[in-house]
Amino acid sequence: MTRVLVLGTGLIGTSLGLALSDGQGANPSAQGETYDVLLSDIDAGNARTAVQRGAGRLWDGYEAVDIVVAAGPPRAIPAQLQNAQQLGLASTYTHVSSIQSQVQREVEALGCDMSSVVGGHPLAGRETSGPAGARADLFFGRPWAVCSGPETTTSCAAAVVELARAAGAEPVELTAQEHDHAVAVLSHLPQVVASALAGQLVTQSGNAAIRTELSGPGLADTTRLAASSSALWTEILTANSDFVAPAVRGLAAALRALGEALEQGTAGRSAVSDFLDRGHRGRALVPVKRGVRDIGFTRVAVTVDDRPGRLAALLADAGRAHINVEDVQVDHLPGRPTGVIELLVEVEAGPPLAAALAARGWRVRHDDEST
Amino acid sequence: MTRVLVLGTGLIGTSLGLALSDGQGANPSAQGETYDVLLSDIDAGNARTAVQRGAGRLWDGYEAVDIVVAAGPPRAIPAQLQNAQQLGLASTYTHVSSIQSQVQREVEALGCDMSSVVGGHPLAGRETSGPAGARADLFFGRPWAVCSGPETTTSCAAAVVELARAAGAEPVELTAQEHDHAVAVLSHLPQVVASALAGQLVTQSGNAAIRTELSGPGLADTTRLAASSSALWTEILTANSDFVAPAVRGLAAALRALGEALEQGTAGRSAVSDFLDRGHRGRALVPVKRGVRDIGFTRVAVTVDDRPGRLAALLADAGRAHINVEDVQVDHLPGRPTGVIELLVEVEAGPPLAAALAARGWRVRHDDEST
Repeated sequence: MTRVLVLGTGLIGTSLGLALSDGQGANPSAQGETYDVLLSDIDAGNARTAVQRGAGRLWDGYEAVDIVVAAGPPRAIPAQLQNAQQLGLASTYTHVSSIQSQVQREVEALGCDMSSVVGGHPLAGRETSGPAGARADLFFGRPWAVCSGPETTTSCAAAVVELARAAGAEPVELTAQEHDHAVAVLSHLPQVVASALAGQLVTQSGNAAIRTELSGPGLADTTRLAASSSALWTEILTANSDFVAPAVRGLAAALRALGEALEQGTAGRSAVSDFLDRGHRGRALVPVKRGVRDIGFTRVAVTVDDRPGRLAALLADAGRAHINVEDVQVDHLPGRPTGVIELLVEVEAGPPLAAALAARGWRVRHDDEST
Repeated sequence: MTRVLVLGTGLIGTSLGLALSDGQGANPSAQGETYDVLLSDIDAGNARTAVQRGAGRLWDGYEAVDIVVAAGPPRAIPAQLQNAQQLGLASTYTHVSSIQSQVQREVEALGCDMSSVVGGHPLAGRETSGPAGARADLFFGRPWAVCSGPETTTSCAAAVVELARAAGAEPVELTAQEHDHAVAVLSHLPQVVASALAGQLVTQSGNAAIRTELSGPGLADTTRLAASSSALWTEILTANSDFVAPAVRGLAAALRALGEALEQGTAGRSAVSDFLDRGHRGRALVPVKRGVRDIGFTRVAVTVDDRPGRLAALLADAGRAHINVEDVQVDHLPGRPTGVIELLVEVEAGPPLAAALAARGWRVRHDDEST
C-alpha cells in the first residue's frame, strides 16, 4: 500500500486520484501495488467534489504519506513542495508542471532538499477543467515525463515512475532541459503555428472579406489549437521562452525565405520544393497513432441514410460476416439526407466485407489499394 | 437531358462522371435534369477504366455537347479549352483548376471567346489519384467555386452552377481574384504552416534528438498536411504566388514579432497574449462541420476490451435502448488491452443511454456538462 497526497484537486489531481483509486479497471496492467489517495485543495468545494467522485479521502493536514504530488497551478507548485517538505510529509515529492526547468530552479532557490524532488509532467488533458471533468482513464497510454535532477535519488525517481505507470501512463525519463526542448517543439510550436494561421484570417480579412465557405478540413485541423485558452498559453510560452523563442525565430526565418522564393517566380521554384520536402521528412518523424494502425488495414465505405439505427445495423451485418471492425468514421454531409460510414478492417477482410455488405443491400465502395 | 464532355478522366473527371451518371443515390436533391456524360483522355487506359466504372461513355472525338469540362492537369487546361472552342463543341466551357486568375489570363491570351468560359474549382479531393480512386460522392456537400469573367454570359454561368449542384456540391459564385485570395489563406497557407512546422522537427533535431514520444494529437493534427505531394504543392504555391507570397510574409512577420516578445520576458507578455487572442478571433471565423453538429449533443464514453465484435455489441445495446447514435469515436490505446469508445447522442439521450449501457454491464462514463 502506497499512500499518495495530492495537493490540488483540479482536472489532473482528481483524475490521478480516480486512476489510482480505481484498482481494477483503470489500470489492468499494474498488478499488486495498491494506492491510498489523500486529497487537499485550498478550494474546499473542489476537494469535496473530488472526494464525492471517489478520487480519495480528505487529508487532515497532518497525516504523513509516501509521495506528495503538487498538482496546483504552475506558479503555486514550488511553494507547495517547499511547505510539504518542511512538514516532512513524505519520502518523495513530485509535481505535474508542464514546464520543468523553471520549477526545478525555483524549488532549489527555495532551499528544498533536492534529493527527494522528482519533476513530473503527464501529457494529458481535456478541453474542460476542474474536478467535474476528471476521469480515471485520462492518462491511459499517454506519456508521463519523469525528470530527475542531478541530486535526485534513484529510489525517489523509481517511485514516480511506478506512480505514473499505476495511473495508466507510459513513463518517459529524461532531464528537465530535454523535456522543455521537446515540448517547445512538439507542443508549444504547434500552438504558436495554429494561432498564427488563425490570426492571419483576421489580418487578411482587413483588406477584403475572405469567402470562408471555400474552406475545408485542412484549415479546421490546422487551426484547432487556436481555440485554446490565451491566458494559459501566455503562461506556458513565457515560462518556456528559453526554448520556444529560438524555435519561433527559426520558423519565422523559414517562412520569410519561402515568401522570397515565391516572389522570385521560376528562379525560386527549387527553394519552394525544398521547403515542402523538408516538411515531408519532418512529418515522417511524427508518431501518428491512427496512422500506425492504418498499416495492414483497409477502408470499406458505405453510403447510408442518416436515420436512427443505421450504424448499428451496418456493424451488426459486418459482425454476421464474422469480420472485426477496428475503427469507424462517420461523415455526415451538411444539408444532405445521406452520410458515408467508413469501416477500418484488416486488409484481407476488405473484399469479403464489401461483398457481404453489398449482398445485404448496402451501397458499398471498396477501392482495393493494389489496383 | 444535358450533354457533358469531360476532358481528362483522372480522379476529379471520373468522379464528376460518376456523380452525374448516378441518377438516384449520388444526388438526391437534384430533381428533373439528367446528364449524358461523354469521356475522353489522352491516356486510353484511364478513359477505359472510367467507362468501366460507369462514369459515362467514350467520346468519339466529334460529337457536340452542351458543356465541356476541361479536367486535365492545370497546365493543360488552357489548351484543352482553346481546342474545344475551336471545334465549336459546346455552348459552355468550364474547368476544374485549383487556381483561377492564371487560367483566365492564359485562356484569354490564347484568343478564346470569353463569353462562354466559366472558371470552376470543386474543393474536394482524396489522398489517391486516377480514375480507380474516383467516387460518385466525392463532391457531396463540398463547395464548388464558380468564377465568371467580366464577359461571361449569365446563361453560361448558370449552366455551371447547375452542373456543380447536380454533382452534389454547393456552388459558390465569386471572381477569380476573390477565389485565389480565399484559397491562398484558407487552403495554401495551412499547407505552408504544416510544412514549416514539420520542417522544424528536422531543423531542431539537428542540435539534439527530440524525444518525440512526448508528442500528442496537437502535433499530429497540425502537421497532417505536410505529408501532401511536394511536386503538386510546388505547382499550386507558385501558380498562386501573387496571393500566397504576401500571406506568407505576413505570417513570418507575426512570428518574428512573437519571438521578440518572448525574448523580452515580462515586458513582452502583453504582446504574447495579443498574438494568442488574435488567433482566438481567427479560429472563430473557421467553419467547423463537426463542431457545428456537437451543439445539442453529448458524449457517452465506454471502456471496452479490444476484442472482435465489441463495437457492434455496444451499438446493438444502444439500439435496444432506442437511442440513435449520431457519431462514434474509437480510441485505441497503444500497448493496452482496452480502448475507449465515445458515442455522440442528443443531450437528452445521454443519461438514459449511460444508464441502459451500465445496466447491461458496460463500463460507462458520462459527464453531464451541466454539472
